[in-house]
Amino acid sequence: MRISELSAASGVPIPTIKYYLREGLLPQGETTAATRAQYGERHLHRLRLIRALLEVGRLPLASIRQVIAAVEDESLPVHEMLGTAHYALGPKPGHKPGPKPGPKTEPLGDAEDDPAARERWREAHAEVDRLLAALELRVSADAPTRDELAHNLIAMRRLGLPGTAEALMPYAEAALRLVRDYEMGTIPFDGPRDQAVESIVLGTVMYGRAFDVLRRIAHESESARLLKSRPPSDVSDG
Amino acid sequence: MRISELSAASGVPIPTIKYYLREGLLPQGETTAATRAQYGERHLHRLRLIRALLEVGRLPLASIRQVIAAVEDESLPVHEMLGTAHYALGPKPGHKPGPKPGPKTEPLGDAEDDPAARERWREAHAEVDRLLAALELRVSADAPTRDELAHNLIAMRRLGLPGTAEALMPYAEAALRLVRDYEMGTIPFDGPRDQAVESIVLGTVMYGRAFDVLRRIAHESESARLLKSRPPSDVSDG
Repeated sequence: MRISELSAASGVPIPTIKYYLREGLLPQGETTAATRAQYGERHLHRLRLIRALLEVGRLPLASIRQVIAAVEDESLPVHEMLGTAHYALGPKPGHKPGPKPGPKTEPLGDAEDDPAARERWREAHAEVDRLLAALELRVSADAPTRDELAHNLIAMRRLGLPGTAEALMPYAEAALRLVRDYEMGTIPFDGPRDQAVESIVLGTVMYGRAFDVLRRIAHESESARLLKSRPPSDVSDG
Repeated sequence: MRISELSAASGVPIPTIKYYLREGLLPQGETTAATRAQYGERHLHRLRLIRALLEVGRLPLASIRQVIAAVEDESLPVHEMLGTAHYALGPKPGHKPGPKPGPKTEPLGDAEDDPAARERWREAHAEVDRLLAALELRVSADAPTRDELAHNLIAMRRLGLPGTAEALMPYAEAALRLVRDYEMGTIPFDGPRDQAVESIVLGTVMYGRAFDVLRRIAHESESARLLKSRPPSDVSDG
């Protein structure tokens, strides 16, 4: 198809497609005349992937470039390629948790020369290690998710919640069961590399959000059951 | 204790405490002299709750006022009181058109006079109803979580994911199991009202974030297990 058809099929405006071509995010089409090129399915797949990374993953362009590079490097094993996308989906560097860290919201970052903060960080990482070991999870030693979880544990303790491996165990078990019994089967590992990465990005973000709502829905429902209270208006339809 | 001691014990600066007192978010202390008041445990609990709503729930002050009013209205059943906090934890208005997101009849932002969008909205709500009915979940007819989930389904379909009750079932089941088997047992329903609400807010947000990281950790681990067990020639291409 021509660039105008690619634009119509993907919903991406022509100037944006040209920009992706110039930046090397989208492979060149097959040149059929001096000013004409043909595009195919793989261009459509790539545009879908870029859109997923941009709109759903909210990745900055620099990270998108890295993910695309991993997709195109066929010598990179699938696991590593997926890891590139996956690691990019965590909290962005520079984005401190919190809208504007005020005086009360001590950001955890400035721990450099505070021995107590360093000790808290070391302890939290030890809890993360214990949790991963207890569930025999195979996670790279430099996975950013380790830091993210350690961060969470420190924040929990500051709020008076038990920030321990034991306190997280029911959540870790629920997550592992969901991933092992269901989600792994939905990733097209054997399809085109573009598609596996798109599936990881969309699945991680969109179903993660859905789980979050469904958990709050389950809270309301179980609280109603437990407290033997009826919702003021009508109960669930269906 | 005096206000300076309350400040030291809670970590909340004195001017902020005075502001909460003026605004009625914190109950007045017991006056012991013309310019002196005594504060106790319940003031500490209230400050913890306000801090949780503000820093962890990221609620605007107007919503915090509503939650505090529900906590103080002893005639309000616990289930309704918790609902006030719980509903406030969804996406903030401003995400959606209008100051207050309406019930299920209100269409999406771009949908005001677009019949196709209205139809998508109606269909998505029908899927939500089917899901809740299949799991016998008791959720108020005007729960904002219904809108939130319908929103998610529409976004999924736009991205080419199956936005159906069936596609969400494994997530709904996982959420329900976690809430029913574990989380409900952690909420101090019989303690002070402040404390139950604080527990709901902290638990919903902090353990929700932890689950999100743990799911990504489980993805990495299961992907390593699945892909590294294959011979390299099998995984490098699709």
